[in-house]
Parts: sequence; C-alpha cells; structure tokens
Amino acid sequence: MSFLKEISPLVKKHFLSENDVLSRRAAQITAEIQQGERRNYNEVLDLSSGDLHRGGIKPITFVRQVLAACLYPALLEDDSLPLDVKQRTENLLRECNGGSVGSYTESSGIAKIKHCVSQFITRRDGGVLSSPDNIFIQSGSLMSLMIMLKLLIRSEDLCRTGVLIPVPTYATFTLALEEQGAAIIPYHLCEEQGWTLQVEELHRALQEARKICNPVALYICNPGNPTGHLQSRKSIEEVIRFAAEERLCLLADEVYQSCVYGDDTEFYSYKKVLSEMDSNISSTVELASFNSASKGFMGECGLRGGYMELVNLDPAVMKYTHTLFSIAPCPPVVGQIALDLMADPPKPGDASFPTFSEEVQSIKNMIRKNTGRIQEVFAELPGISCHPLKAGLFVFPCLHFPPKAIKWAKKRQMEPDMLYCLHLLEETGLHVRPGCEYGQRKDSHHIRLFVGTQENIMEEALQRLKTFHMRFMKEFS
Amino acid sequence: MSFLKEISPLVKKHFLSENDVLSRRAAQITAEIQQGERRNYNEVLDLSSGDLHRGGIKPITFVRQVLAACLYPALLEDDSLPLDVKQRTENLLRECNGGSVGSYTESSGIAKIKHCVSQFITRRDGGVLSSPDNIFIQSGSLMSLMIMLKLLIRSEDLCRTGVLIPVPTYATFTLALEEQGAAIIPYHLCEEQGWTLQVEELHRALQEARKICNPVALYICNPGNPTGHLQSRKSIEEVIRFAAEERLCLLADEVYQSCVYGDDTEFYSYKKVLSEMDSNISSTVELASFNSASKGFMGECGLRGGYMELVNLDPAVMKYTHTLFSIAPCPPVVGQIALDLMADPPKPGDASFPTFSEEVQSIKNMIRKNTGRIQEVFAELPGISCHPLKAGLFVFPCLHFPPKAIKWAKKRQMEPDMLYCLHLLEETGLHVRPGCEYGQRKDSHHIRLFVGTQENIMEEALQRLKTFHMRFMKEFS
Repeated sequence: MSFLKEISPLVKKHFLSENDVLSRRAAQITAEIQQGERRNYNEVLDLSSGDLHRGGIKPITFVRQVLAACLYPALLEDDSLPLDVKQRTENLLRECNGGSVGSYTESSGIAKIKHCVSQFITRRDGGVLSSPDNIFIQSGSLMSLMIMLKLLIRSEDLCRTGVLIPVPTYATFTLALEEQGAAIIPYHLCEEQGWTLQVEELHRALQEARKICNPVALYICNPGNPTGHLQSRKSIEEVIRFAAEERLCLLADEVYQSCVYGDDTEFYSYKKVLSEMDSNISSTVELASFNSASKGFMGECGLRGGYMELVNLDPAVMKYTHTLFSIAPCPPVVGQIALDLMADPPKPGDASFPTFSEEVQSIKNMIRKNTGRIQEVFAELPGISCHPLKAGLFVFPCLHFPPKAIKWAKKRQMEPDMLYCLHLLEETGLHVRPGCEYGQRKDSHHIRLFVGTQENIMEEALQRLKTFHMRFMKEFS
Repeated sequence: MSFLKEISPLVKKHFLSENDVLSRRAAQITAEIQQGERRNYNEVLDLSSGDLHRGGIKPITFVRQVLAACLYPALLEDDSLPLDVKQRTENLLRECNGGSVGSYTESSGIAKIKHCVSQFITRRDGGVLSSPDNIFIQSGSLMSLMIMLKLLIRSEDLCRTGVLIPVPTYATFTLALEEQGAAIIPYHLCEEQGWTLQVEELHRALQEARKICNPVALYICNPGNPTGHLQSRKSIEEVIRFAAEERLCLLADEVYQSCVYGDDTEFYSYKKVLSEMDSNISSTVELASFNSASKGFMGECGLRGGYMELVNLDPAVMKYTHTLFSIAPCPPVVGQIALDLMADPPKPGDASFPTFSEEVQSIKNMIRKNTGRIQEVFAELPGISCHPLKAGLFVFPCLHFPPKAIKWAKKRQMEPDMLYCLHLLEETGLHVRPGCEYGQRKDSHHIRLFVGTQENIMEEALQRLKTFHMRFMKEFS
C-alpha cells in the first residue's frame, strides 16, 4: 500500500541519473583497506571536492579562536587568547540575542555582520558603495541562489523560465535549477582561448532558447569552477552590455574571488564594473552576486556561511526578497561569524596579524607550487593539455583519448572520462572527477583536480596520475 | 527596464500578506529607547519566539565545551576541560574529513552521528530498533520537512497535492507548504478538551478536501506548538489507524519531545506506537518524524541541527530521498555535533554529569515555576482562559473579548488579537504573538507566550500583561 511508490514525477524525472558510482567506490575502497585488504596503495587520495581542510590544510588560527570563544565565552578569561580575538568575540556576542550564538538571528543575517560585509565589498571595489540593506546572509551561496530562483521562476507560465548557464559548470547549480522547474540554456566557454566567455556564444544560445522558453537570467561563475578561468574587465563589460540589451538579470557566482594567482591577473567584481559603466546601464541592470566563507583561503565549508548582494532591484521586488528570506530557516550563527571574520580579518598592528598573514601566505604559496607542478607534469604527458590556472581551486585539463579508448568506453556504455576516472581510482587510489559531470563540448573529455592540498599529497597524486596515464595511453594507442 | 518587476506570481500570491508589523514595531521601540526616548518601561520583553538563550537561559556547559574544543582543538591541551569533553571532542573530530569541522560532510550527515541518533531513538522508544540508514540530518527540522514535501508534492498533477495540517499551527510550515504549491487542508484541534486531536475532525477535513485536491499526507505537531498539548498513546493509535485507512503518509513534528511536564504525562513517539500496532499497520504506514537541537533544553537554535527518521518507506523512494539530500547543501557541522551531544549526553560517572544534570534540572524547574505562575495570574484575570501546559515551550490562552473590543478592531480592519498584541507592546513593551497568526476557530482569539525565560523576566512580563489586560477589559466593557 506504499503511497510514496508514486513518487513525484518531477523528482523522478530529474534525479534518476544521479548516482555517484565514483564516490561510492572510493568509500568502499577506503573501507576495504581499513579492513586489511592489500592494494598497491595504502589510501585513497581525494582531489574530488573543493575542501581545503579535507586536503590537510590547517584552519586559520584567528578564525577558530574567535569561534571557540563565541561558543564558550569562559575562554575570554583565558590569558592565552590574543587581545583582538577577545575584543572581536565580545563585539560579536553583543550582536547575538541573549549574548548567545545559540539564539535565532534575523533571517537575512545579523545586522552588524551585514554591515561588515558591505564595508568589505566597498573596500574590495575601491570605494563603490554597498548597503547592508542589499546583503542577504544564508547557509552558503547555493541557498541564496535558490531563493533568487524562486523570485525568477514563473512556474505558472505556460512558457518555461530559462536561465543561461555555462558549459562546463558545477553540477549542483544545474540540479537546483532543474528542481525548481527552470529550463537550462547552456552556453559554451571557449576552451581554446583559456575558457573565455564570448558574447557571440551568449547571443547564439539566447536566440535558440527563445524558441522554446522565456530566458530571464544569466548565470556566470567567475573565477570559474571547474575551469579556473578569470574574466577580464573587458569581458565583464561585454557580458553586462549583453544583459542590458537582452533584459536579463545577472547571477554572478564569485565565490572564488579571493583565490587569484599570477602577477598580471586581478579579480574585478561584476558590481564594480557595472558601477563604472554608463548610467543607463549602471543604474538598471539587475545583479545578484554571491560569495561565501567556504571557498576562500579560510576554507570553512562545514560552517555554512554565504552572502548575496543585490544591485538595482526594484524596491517592490526587494520586499518580496526580504519576505522569502524571512520564511527561510535562520542561517547558522557560526557560519555568519565566519563571514564576519572573512570580511574583516586582522589588520597590521593587531595581535593576530602576523600569524594570520603567515597562514594565508603559506596557503597561497602551496597552491602556486601545486599548480606549477601540475603544469610541469602535464607538459611531459602525452594526450593531456591544460591552460595555466589563473584563479579558483581547480584545474580542468583536457584528455585527448586515442580512438581505441573511446571505443572501449562506448562498449561499456560509459563516458570515456568517467571510465578513465573509475580506473584511475581502482588502480591507483586517486579520486578526481570526470568532465562529463560538468558538461563539455561533444567529443571532448576532461578531468577536474582540486589544487588546494598539501604539497606532498599533490606530489603523490601526480605520481599516481602519471603512472596510470602512461599505462592507459600505451594500452589504447 | 526592471525585469524583476514581473515577480513570480506564485511568490506574489502567497507572500503579499507577510508583513510582520509587530516585530518591526518591537525593533523600533527598542531603537527609540536606546536613543533615549522615555517610556514607562525601560526595555521590550520578548516572549514572541521559542528561543531559550534569548530568554536569558545559559547554554549547557558540556555542549559548549565540546563545540569550542572541536573548533579549536588546541584547547585539548588545556587542563581546565573535563576528561569526557576531551574524549568526545577527539571522537567527533576523527569523524570529520581532515579532522576539521570546516570540511564538508556526507549530505545526510556524518555517519557516526546518524548512528548515535538512531541509538538515542532506540533508547527513547524502549528498544524499538532504529537504523542509521533511515536518519537524515539537515540544518533544522524544517529543511528536512521541505525535502519530504518535494517527494510528496506532484506539481505536474492537474489535481493539487493536499496536506492535512492542524489549526492552530506554527505558520512557517504552512508557508513552506504553500510555497511548494501544495493545498492546505486544515483540521481543528479541540480546544475545549485541551487541544486534543480528534479523528472525527480528521475525517471531516479529509472528506471536504477530496472534492478539491489529492490529500497525501497528515502533519501532526506533538507536543503542540503553539498549543502545548501532548497526545495520549490512544490518540496516537487512532491517528495512525486513520492514516492507514486513508493511505496518508504521516509527518510527525516531535521537536518538543524532551519538553514534557507534569507527573502523569509521558511522551510517546509515533514511531514507538506504530511499531507496537498490528503488523498490517506497523509494517505499512509511512512515517517521517522530526526532531532538532533547537527545541529541547539545549535550546541551540542558532547552531542549526535537526534530523528526520523515515519508517516504512519503499526502498525505491528511499533512493530518491538520498538523492534529494545529496543535492541539498551540506548540513552545518557544528549543528550536527549539537545533535550528537543531544542524543548522547553525559551519563552518571562522567566528569561532566553533575553540572550537566544540574543545568538541565534548573531549566525544567524554571519552566514549571513559570507555567505555575502563568496559571495563577490568568486565573485572577477576567476574559482569559488557559489549559494547563503539558508539554512544549508555549502557552496559548484564549482571550474572550467584549463585543466593544471586537467592533473597535473591525473598525481598524485588524484581527482583535493582533490589535491587542500591538497595544500590549506599545503600552507595556511586552512582545507576544496573536492567535490569528496560527489559525483559530472563527470568532475565537488567543495569544502565544513563550515560557522558557528567567523567572524574574516572566514575573515582570506577567505584571505588564496583567496591568494592560485589566485596563483593556475595563475600557471595552
């Protein structure tokens, strides 16, 4: 008599294929090794997710000291905590109802923390004003994005609401869109030119989509996941002009904004670039931009804190946004505090500053070294090409499989890069993700590797990849 | 050119009315007092939300010590932390990826914590087995409920999916249902008999609803919010039998399960009662039950941790549930740890046990004293009647307004109890919520008061209420 056998068709349609064989196999292998099974490697190396702490990177001391003291204020009596940690803790607890991080807060976040975030944005953008009224905090940027989608998606329309999204892109956002009933309008990033976003491609995608849905928004991920590209100022201007002409709302996922490498590279926010364009554009194009405490050098994914800034939204729409946030669950207070610490880190002269800047610098150095080594190793290997990493925490090299390898995958009814990843995992214990999960041009193949891990782990991972790849290419050539 | 002016009709339809005048006015008054404005009270007393720490209750020391040490493991070197705190911290950190609460976890929660929760359920239910595979952790019970709704609601059907919900009930759940496009089927609790749930009323509601929608689930809140009622074992059996006959999935919101008062009262979970019924029922009726770290004596609302247990769901449906959780954001790790500590608190013999049990007992005593005083004060006042509180953290007295007061409210186009609450706030600074927000029988009126606050605050609140109420009744008699 199971009623739920008749599962919602929407759920059924979209999620049948979601079956993460790779992660399940990685967990199985780990369990088997723990149970004493012998393999020619002693543990699974996980470069599959963008998680600094999982990669062995130590949390930032200042962040954890403040959080610990917020949770257990008796620590304020402790002489070992630096003065700025104590002061920040006291200031933050004053903003919590009843002086406890265990109380509910305003549903869009603690006012003082929204203020702190808006000041951070103003500094980041060289003085472009940001108002706390336009800041909405939630348990990560995906939650805010999903709330924005609720505003955008007209599920009562006969014509489905469409959102332009890049290929390749991070799968979770695509799933969230599908779940809300939106039509996905893919536009391809140009791999040949370092994964640049080209406006002609946006036009092409939009024209085709207009035949079948009602496009309302353009989603951009900059710096890119999984591609590691960074948009130039000129490219951002072009995209904004396109959005203005086509009356699209911009959804700018900028969660990797602090992860920018190379000497000639700089992160420009959509907000800043927009604000410096002609006033008929700067005062009209609607923009939601996203950032989080998970993806920067703090790497606090598990604490769950992200914010969204809205620009140029109609006051009436802002009212609805506030209402939607007010019925969403209260964002985790510990995650909110993490955002405050990210937005206002120790400054020169503060007791925590030397340790803090040393820790951040050492993470940056590690990532630079890792990406350098990745380039060196890939340069030696046949059938792999990779653009230099400019930003973000992933590399997304292209794999040029021999025809025999593609045939072999076809026979097994699998994507070639998925089969490659499964065998890489099985034979060497290295867990990376296949390009097919992010979308890619037909007949192109990729893998995604996380670069935020200790150098010795990265070295070991590259050795495993090298050995496997050489054998693989030889076998199928 | 604002695109978003054309707001989603679904959003527009459901949320236009959501405009919390009362809370906004409370915040304004607080700001005015801070700016030096003189009133005949020196602060707003807030009995509006169910938040122990906001009410001045101190967090449980054991909980906060473990959380602080999890965030900043250097504290494990500290001699001042009890041994069981250190051991628990070490055990928990071993379960976190990279040994950090900053890493992502499994999307349905850390396996070891799900195991701990299932053991807690087994103990609570006197040995009825619970499997970690049926436990899903999220950032609060509402998040899990919303994921269940996605499974239940067939938005592609012509006939809308219906869910039976009690009147009165907590508004957030109703809003979540509406937002998902479900039809709400109200059933009335019987106030005359202490807010009991009567099966005849369920039948009536269901028959009527069948004409206009497709009812699939029955939502129960036990112990009740805002009503403070506690279902008897017999009542639960009747409801389960009804669900079996009518093929409804049960959604049992049991977040106040640890807040039960009185000597002749005992909490029975739906899971336990179901498991002890005839096998044609116990093995078939689908049940989702919810609990959280926010609503018990820990009162850790801000940390965001809740779980759902599923019973008798079809294995195919369980697969979809796992998939839906896998694309939901990772639950906050600190909230997950709070659940672990709730499910497995210090035991006699543990170093933290004496302090822990003293703290919990003192909160229980405070609530007993508060509810005793509430009964005493209400007994003296004309036009207020209230059932003795059996469970939960709220009382929901009935206000019998004189006809003149009702006319006065009508003239102002407001619900009488809303107008009462606004004036109570304005004149005395006491913030409680009006019954109209929870739903109530036509021409009946209520207020909801939180009982989890320090005794001196409660005494002050009762004096303010008394003064205002006497004046109000006199003015309108």
